[in-house]
Amino acid sequence: MLKNDAFLKACRREPTDFTPVWIMRQAGRYMKEYQAIRKRVDFLTMCKTPELAAQATLLPIDILGVDAAILFSDILIPVEAMGMEVRFTEKRGPVFSTPIRSEAQVQGLSIPGPAESEERMPFIADAIRLILQGLDHRVPLIGFSGAPFTLATYMIEGETSKNFTWIKRMMYTDPPLLHKLLDKITGAVIHYLNMQIRAGVHAVQLFDTWAGSLSPDDYQEFALPYVERVIKGIDKKNCPVILFANGVSSILEYMGNSGADVNGLDWRIDIGVARRRVGSQVALQGNLDPCVLYAGPDEIRGHVQAILHKYGTGPGHIFNLGHGILPDTPVEHAKALVDIVHEESSSKRS
Amino acid sequence: MLKNDAFLKACRREPTDFTPVWIMRQAGRYMKEYQAIRKRVDFLTMCKTPELAAQATLLPIDILGVDAAILFSDILIPVEAMGMEVRFTEKRGPVFSTPIRSEAQVQGLSIPGPAESEERMPFIADAIRLILQGLDHRVPLIGFSGAPFTLATYMIEGETSKNFTWIKRMMYTDPPLLHKLLDKITGAVIHYLNMQIRAGVHAVQLFDTWAGSLSPDDYQEFALPYVERVIKGIDKKNCPVILFANGVSSILEYMGNSGADVNGLDWRIDIGVARRRVGSQVALQGNLDPCVLYAGPDEIRGHVQAILHKYGTGPGHIFNLGHGILPDTPVEHAKALVDIVHEESSSKRS
Repeated sequence: MLKNDAFLKACRREPTDFTPVWIMRQAGRYMKEYQAIRKRVDFLTMCKTPELAAQATLLPIDILGVDAAILFSDILIPVEAMGMEVRFTEKRGPVFSTPIRSEAQVQGLSIPGPAESEERMPFIADAIRLILQGLDHRVPLIGFSGAPFTLATYMIEGETSKNFTWIKRMMYTDPPLLHKLLDKITGAVIHYLNMQIRAGVHAVQLFDTWAGSLSPDDYQEFALPYVERVIKGIDKKNCPVILFANGVSSILEYMGNSGADVNGLDWRIDIGVARRRVGSQVALQGNLDPCVLYAGPDEIRGHVQAILHKYGTGPGHIFNLGHGILPDTPVEHAKALVDIVHEESSSKRS
Repeated sequence: MLKNDAFLKACRREPTDFTPVWIMRQAGRYMKEYQAIRKRVDFLTMCKTPELAAQATLLPIDILGVDAAILFSDILIPVEAMGMEVRFTEKRGPVFSTPIRSEAQVQGLSIPGPAESEERMPFIADAIRLILQGLDHRVPLIGFSGAPFTLATYMIEGETSKNFTWIKRMMYTDPPLLHKLLDKITGAVIHYLNMQIRAGVHAVQLFDTWAGSLSPDDYQEFALPYVERVIKGIDKKNCPVILFANGVSSILEYMGNSGADVNGLDWRIDIGVARRRVGSQVALQGNLDPCVLYAGPDEIRGHVQAILHKYGTGPGHIFNLGHGILPDTPVEHAKALVDIVHEESSSKRS
């Protein structure tokens, strides 16, 4: 029995006493406690050491008072389990030594089933168990995965990309090969998320971060169907699914009909407009510009009030940033955000 | 008297026999003739040497057969004339040695009036005169400027930015200072564009490339009003204005009411949806994903047909990519695009 289940209630569009809030990348470089861990070990080691991943996951619960924890991990973990070698560098972020460019490479990828997933990524379920202990039913735990298109982007580009030229080259010159790759990733993601659900996460978020780089037609062909298959394929009986994308404005109706319980919005859309566009079938998560946290509490309060006002009085709003918190954000401003969302949304309801 | 005025007619939403087409960055690195010039001189020298700028401007008219030329220049030219020192590096693109971060720096910027604009940027009017000679009334010439918000982004960030953290820091912590800067840029842009119009350009495009990184509220406060002032301030009697932004989906209605004659769309919006959203008050320009040109003519044809079909039979469509052509695009594919747009749109009308 959770002491604070506002987040889960909001996912199901049930009324809550206040608007629950968490922050994408809430366990991150802007926290000195996180940096202290990272001084000792590299990023990937941190993801793969259950004690450290659990420690990072719990930081924002203790320090910020957010209403949900999210597993500390990286979206490329399941890709590594498919057989790709990934490295993290301080400057370039994740780098694949051999990006996917050929049919043979796609054929060479494996789809880890339930047993292989546990075997190749034992640290995931271990971390989840430690986190649940540490949480002691205070707030729910969110698991996550990259969505197939976004994972394919990393696998094909090989590193962070500006124009996504390699995956789009494949999309326009050899679409069957891209579909073959997306199909394999989809299988892997389903098993990966089900493993997290078996270990006890209360909700999952699918990060389709780069889906907003697609035209609406391409989104419908290369991103949406695979998201739908993931959502159908996971054991979501008691586990709401959040679908997040960056640049949702031109694909929002598709996201609303994807089967996800919650749509995560970036900051470049008015959340009131989004509410009207998707109707009441999904909850909405978002959507403050992360840069607002450079400013102090007064400015933050104004922006929180504006978003709460735009969303209106209906249930089903989870407050969040529209993208991950930036590394140079003052931690006191993140704390202020959480407090202000709780204050302002409680006063609205009383 | 222009031999081919389809572009200008489409800007004014008058019927044309075919859909006119041009390509953003049509004189660029993907052309070997361009590279031959760049081997001899650096980018900024090329912009400031009227003969070379004219030569580059005319290349796509001769090689691709596009329906409009666009002045070869850089959006940061008028910023240099305001007193900032800009350098271009192969890797990092444009770099300002001293980005704007303080009130004193904003105060130190000058607003070149009509005479100072001619004096500090004589190469602009000289290039335009040479281009008009070279065009010999074949197609119209488009002039351009960065829009105030987008120019401010470069001036404050100091170089190409991923998250626009410096300008947004100023936006949220010291909005009056940002407004002061935008106000000065607006003055400079008006004089800069009027100088181009006096020299004879037939239309102008305002590139508000980064305006799509703003929430709709911030767009209305920090981008739109300055675009509107530019449009009101220039001598647009016989000179249609195209307003382009990247990520238009959440700001399109504002763009439609900005006073611009044409809205330039990136590829992440369905042009048929855009048509319905802005109504018939503006022409639309766009919006093929530049990566489609990695594929061959058959694939290009399919995408062109889809866009023409979505736009429908009404007047006021200028075909273009949704962003600049990429440097690794085969030039034959760009040629094929122009031919296919002409063929497919003519057959639609007959």
